[in-house]
Parts: sequence; C-alpha cells; structure tokens
Amino acid sequence: MAIENAPSALPTDALAHHISDQAKRRTGNAVKAMLKFTNKPGVLSLAGGLPNPSFFAFKSLATTVPSPLLLKPEAPQNALINDAFVPQSPPDLASLFARALQYSMVDGLPEISDIANEIVSSVYRPAYPDWTVLPTTGNTDALYKTWITFCNPGEGVLAEEWTYSVMLSSILPLGLRPVPVQADADGMSSVALRNLLENWDTIAPKGLSRPHTLYLVPVGQNPTGTVMSMQRKREIYSICSKYDIIIIEDDPYYFMQFDDYGAKANGTATAASNGDNSWPESLQPTPQVSISSRPAIVSVLTPLDTSLDTDGRVIRLDSFSKTLAPGLRLGWVTCNKLFADRIYAMAEVTSQAPSGFSQTAVCTLWAQWGLSGYLSWLEEYMHIGLRTQYRVRRDAFKCAIRVRARPSLPRPRARDEGVGSMHARTFHDQRI
Amino acid sequence: MAIENAPSALPTDALAHHISDQAKRRTGNAVKAMLKFTNKPGVLSLAGGLPNPSFFAFKSLATTVPSPLLLKPEAPQNALINDAFVPQSPPDLASLFARALQYSMVDGLPEISDIANEIVSSVYRPAYPDWTVLPTTGNTDALYKTWITFCNPGEGVLAEEWTYSVMLSSILPLGLRPVPVQADADGMSSVALRNLLENWDTIAPKGLSRPHTLYLVPVGQNPTGTVMSMQRKREIYSICSKYDIIIIEDDPYYFMQFDDYGAKANGTATAASNGDNSWPESLQPTPQVSISSRPAIVSVLTPLDTSLDTDGRVIRLDSFSKTLAPGLRLGWVTCNKLFADRIYAMAEVTSQAPSGFSQTAVCTLWAQWGLSGYLSWLEEYMHIGLRTQYRVRRDAFKCAIRVRARPSLPRPRARDEGVGSMHARTFHDQRI
Repeated sequence: MAIENAPSALPTDALAHHISDQAKRRTGNAVKAMLKFTNKPGVLSLAGGLPNPSFFAFKSLATTVPSPLLLKPEAPQNALINDAFVPQSPPDLASLFARALQYSMVDGLPEISDIANEIVSSVYRPAYPDWTVLPTTGNTDALYKTWITFCNPGEGVLAEEWTYSVMLSSILPLGLRPVPVQADADGMSSVALRNLLENWDTIAPKGLSRPHTLYLVPVGQNPTGTVMSMQRKREIYSICSKYDIIIIEDDPYYFMQFDDYGAKANGTATAASNGDNSWPESLQPTPQVSISSRPAIVSVLTPLDTSLDTDGRVIRLDSFSKTLAPGLRLGWVTCNKLFADRIYAMAEVTSQAPSGFSQTAVCTLWAQWGLSGYLSWLEEYMHIGLRTQYRVRRDAFKCAIRVRARPSLPRPRARDEGVGSMHARTFHDQRI
Repeated sequence: MAIENAPSALPTDALAHHISDQAKRRTGNAVKAMLKFTNKPGVLSLAGGLPNPSFFAFKSLATTVPSPLLLKPEAPQNALINDAFVPQSPPDLASLFARALQYSMVDGLPEISDIANEIVSSVYRPAYPDWTVLPTTGNTDALYKTWITFCNPGEGVLAEEWTYSVMLSSILPLGLRPVPVQADADGMSSVALRNLLENWDTIAPKGLSRPHTLYLVPVGQNPTGTVMSMQRKREIYSICSKYDIIIIEDDPYYFMQFDDYGAKANGTATAASNGDNSWPESLQPTPQVSISSRPAIVSVLTPLDTSLDTDGRVIRLDSFSKTLAPGLRLGWVTCNKLFADRIYAMAEVTSQAPSGFSQTAVCTLWAQWGLSGYLSWLEEYMHIGLRTQYRVRRDAFKCAIRVRARPSLPRPRARDEGVGSMHARTFHDQRI
C-alpha cells in the first residue's frame, strides 16, 4: 500500500543536463564492470590488487570518546578529561577495522553511509524520497568535485557578493567566474537574484551564459557570518527552481546557529564586564519545552534547503570537521542519485574512500553515542551542547570588545561572527 | 666548506614550462598570505575557522602494530597475533594526536614528511639535492593532481601500450590522450620510444603535439607485471632528458620485486606438487651477504628512476597501501620543489591534509619500528619480510597452475604477475 501524500521519486533525467562535459566523459566504470564476473559464486578475484590482510601492519585501533553529556556548564574543560573508555576492539569493531584497513569502494564502509543516512533522515529530511548520501573526505574536496561534475570552463557561478575565499580559489583556476549577488543580514538577496536573472541578457558581460549553479553557505556565512532565514531560503529556492539552477549548499556550521548577540546574552555581557570568569547565566540549562518525533535541536534551528528540495536540485555538503574533529577528513554529500553517481565516478579516480582509520574512529564513537548521543553532544540534552558552548564564547568575546576596547573602535554589529578571510569579486573585474 | 662532487641545486625555472595553465592560475595562496600577519608575536588569529580543541570528540588514539620481525617462516599467520602492544597515547603521541585532530597545512604533520624524507634519503637517494616530499592521500589522488598540474586538455601522455586502467580513467575525461609505446619483458621499449619521438611529426595524428609527460609503473607493471630493468631505465631517462619529457613514476610495488619464477622456486614447485602445505624451501632464511651503509634490501632491488634524476624531471608517487595498509589513504610525492609547490596548491582546494588518524597511526608505528623496523618488515631481517612472503605465494600459485591445471591451458609465462584489469588503447582509435 502506498503511503498517502508521500513524495514521489524524482525523474532525475530532468536534471541530467546539469552534468559537465568532463563528468559525462567518465563513462564505463571498469571496477563495476568487473564485479559482474568477480561476484559470481566460486570466483576468487585476483584483479583488485588487494594486499593480503595478514600483512597489514596494524592489528587494532582504539579511540576514547567523551560522554556526549560531558560538556557540563560547571566544568567545561575538566569534564572532558573523564573519558568514557572505549574497550579496545570489541568484536564488531575489530571486524569493522579489518574491513577499514583494506581497499573499498569509494563510499567506504556501509556503516558510515548508515550514520549519514540516520542524520539526514531524522534531522534534514529532504523533500523527495530517493535522496542519497555519499561519504567524502570533507567539504573542500567535495566542493571541488562538485565544480568538476557540474560546471564547464567559462561558466559563471552565482554566489554572495562576499564569499568564502577557498570557494574562489577553487573555481577561478578552473576558468569559472563568480557572479556576485548582493546579500543582507538574512543572506543572499532574493530581490537581487531575481533582478539579475530576469535581466541577465542586458546586465551580463558579453558571452557569459546565465549560470546554472548557485553557491551558498547558509549558516555562519563566510565572511559575513549571516544565517539565512527560512523565508529567504524559500524565495531563493523558488527562483532557482524557476530558472533551473542547482544549489550547492556548503553547510559545515549548521549546528552552530546562534541567537543574535544581545537577544539572550545580557547576562553574559554583565558577567564579562565585571571581570567575572564564572559561566554566564545564558549557559544555565534550559528545560526542553517540547518532545516531538523530531530531534529537539532541529526545532530551534533554521530548516535546511534540503527540506524544501522537491526538485532534487540541492547538493548539500556536510562535514564532521566542526562537530567531531577536522583531522577526520570525513563528511558526506546529500543529493539525488544521478548527481551522487557522477560525484562517485569522480572520487574513483581521485580521493577514493575516506581514511579507514577515520571511518573506524567515527564508527567507534557512534557505537557509544548513537544519534541521540550525537544530538546531545550538539545541543539536545539540557541545551548545553556544542552550540551553546560556542555561543557563550561568542557572547563573551563580543562583550569584551564592547566593554574593553577603545571607544574609537566601531561597535561590533549583530551577525558578524564570520570566520576565514574575505574576498569581494565582481564579474566586471575578473581577470582569469 | 662545500662537499666535493655534491650535486648542485636544480635551476627549477628550467622546468617551469611543464606547469599547466590551470596550475599557473592557482596564484596567490590566501592562507600563506595571511600567515605573514597571524604569525606575528602577540597575534591571536581567529581567521582560520579552527574549532576549539577542547570540543574534539576523540581523546586518544591507540593502535597495535606487530613486531616487524613477526613475519616468521615457521608460523606466518599465527605469529601476527602476538602483537607488540603499543601503550595507549604515551606523552609524545598524545601531543601528536592532539595536533592531528585539528586543521593543518596540506602537508599534514611534520612527522609524516620526516618519515617520507627518511625513506627517500636512505633508500631512494635522488640524484639532485633539493628534492622535496609532499604527503598525499594515496597514489590515485596524487596521480590525478599530477595531470591537472602538468597537462593541458588535448595533450598526449606517453604510456606503455598496455597500461593501468585507472590511469586511463583518470586522463580520458580530462581530454588527455594516451600515446602508447611498445613494451617488452624489461618494460617500455626505449627503441620504440626513441622512434616515436624522432618521427613524431610524420607518425602522430594531426594536431597532437609531442607529449611532455610519460607515465610509468616501473615495478609490477599493471597489467603486464614487468619490472623495468636498470639499463632500460637509463635509456628511457636519457631519451626523456633529450626531448624534455617529465616522468610520472607510479611505483606502489617497489618493494615487491620478485625473482623470475623458476630461478629460485624449484623447491616451491616440488612442495606444492606434492600437496605439501609446509613452507617451501625457498622461504628458508638466507644469510645477509653484505653490510653496507645502504639498507640491504636496496642492494637486491632495481634502483629507482629518482636515482638517475639529475634534471629533477621525475615525479615519484609512493604509497603505504601495499606495505602497511590501503585503508590508511596515505602516501607521498617526491619531486623538485617547484613541482611540489604546484601540487601543494592543488591540494589546498581539494584533499587538504591526509587523515590525522592515519597520520597518527603511521607515527605510532614508526615510533615502534623506525626505518630499520620498516625495512625489516619489508625484507631486511633474514630475508623473510613482505617481499619474500608475496614471492612465495606467487611461486605456489604459479606452481599450482602448472601442476594442476588442465594441460590444454597455456603455461604461465615468467613476469606475468600483473594485478588489475587491462586496457589497450592506441591513439588511432581514441574517441574522447
């Protein structure tokens, strides 16, 4: 029996024209072609170049993870030292590590895709059913693969006027041209975007076709620090749908959404201005107000672009760098199956799978934490998770600037928590 | 005082014309530009987007490694179970892991470059002094970076007529054309290469310029299994030097060089044909015949291209995949500084550093083994290392085919230990 009102599967052929010429040339997957024969019962394949596992130079891997509830307000630094010890290589993790040591397909261990699937299906909930996840070695590498998979040299890429410097370093050498769109405190301006696209033929430099890709950092935009509002997301999505533009949502800071400075942070400001080193009042646990089938943290965060994505035109890049550790070099892409397959093909001749050691570490953590532990670590339990920890530091830092800086310095504005360096480029002064 | 006869530093400007247009466009390193300011004493940079290390979700990492001498002939499988236990996070490794968890420059921890430098300077010994190493996420990714860094679309790449399928999957979508060179049991034919280059203008398809890159898998060539002889290496290098061609030496199997089947393996053949499961005679320890300043294993292996490389025209790709474990996704490039800098710039917008967990695991191993342990693991100690372990299996496998297969099957030829799938392509039938 079909579920009523369930979204129907995407006709992904409708999106096939977004694939770049280079990605189209990645035809024929030699490995998959070979699997047809090597997967037959009784066939022992010698073709994969797999080393003999008895000669791997590592016999076990153990990592200790803190309890996800250890980010306690009363002792935020010391608490982390009381680790929950993870028993060294319990049976299932030992078998997992054995697999992690060997070559694998580029999506790595199924366990990692399972973790990404669990997060996406419970937290992000894309608006179409046949979305897929593909583990990556982090957002920088995944972003580069995205340009190669979707853009041909000479094309323009829509982006906020002030955008992430690494995005520019990534596209300019490829012969892609950033097409700046004005932004305000709610993110990219939908008025500016609509105006640009409606009047493209008169505004655009000669020879530059209307872009079919748009780059967004919706949370903690770099360098402006803005968080895109839901209303703005709806407007931008609707325009992209009308003009058949795919959205690249680079969103490592999704769980680091803060209230505006001043909204709840008066306690912090007072504490800091008194030179008081105790934790500010704003960090005191707040009782959870609602229990629903959705994780509580999601209810306080701006929903993702993917939750609007009925067309399957969002390519979302996630990373564990900001939530677990950057050294993992582990994240994932969420997008439609057609796009994921093309990114997969690119990974086969580049990164291959993420590190098996990183994969094992994340699986070890997940065996202890599960999704509920992960969400507690981020925020869920008593609202003292990572999100609050960083917000309190933001508040203290801004307060210190406001109180202690020379009066001649400009006051910090709300929503200016950007990290990374800035670039402003217009397509009128590009020399590429 | 200058060392007499020491090779002089390379005038790398002489090689700059090999850099691709895309790589030339990777100008201006925003991170390095920022370091000018952020490295000043007293400056606390907030620009890097570095998470707070107290919120990393991993507190320690421990891996157990076998003794490098545990590949004993009498009990090759069981011996590996008696691991030397590595104490969990001894102080120096704990500090190393703390650094490995955070973002780093794309060359990762200095300790990994130190390990690569130790191997290269003691085993490979390039013929010019200012060679450099750059850690990578393995040869597949490093190879892709090489094409992007040195080749423009439409160019040809010289390669053996039968070459590695992944190399072809890597270059064809980039619009590069494989230019096949005949090969024999000693590897790529220098006669064929010289003939091709001397007569390029009459032989080559219209519009295809003479290639300036040559791809080689000198040991265990895929799919033919050949090991290039030293004489052949000298000839190929000399031709490349004359025609100003850079050599991409993809050499993960360097330490897996075997004697020809039959040369020493008669004992094996007999044992296997008797259905005897004991270790063949050829595995019995052989006393080391000479002690020199060079590692003993090097004296029995064909020297590398790098040892001939007075011009700095070899880009050597090394991997720990075949010697330690593929799941590490860790290797390194050895080449001149100019080339390494361009590959580094490519890594900044793609892979960034290798996994910190993999780096920590290799450093943990190296703390136990050191270079001498690594060389023992490979072969050095009593000649029972990896190289012998794989040769014995090769011998037993070939013997089994010879003895047990139906007489109608063709006999295996010497030097046909290739792994991976085959492709034959000529530049006459390319449709790319």
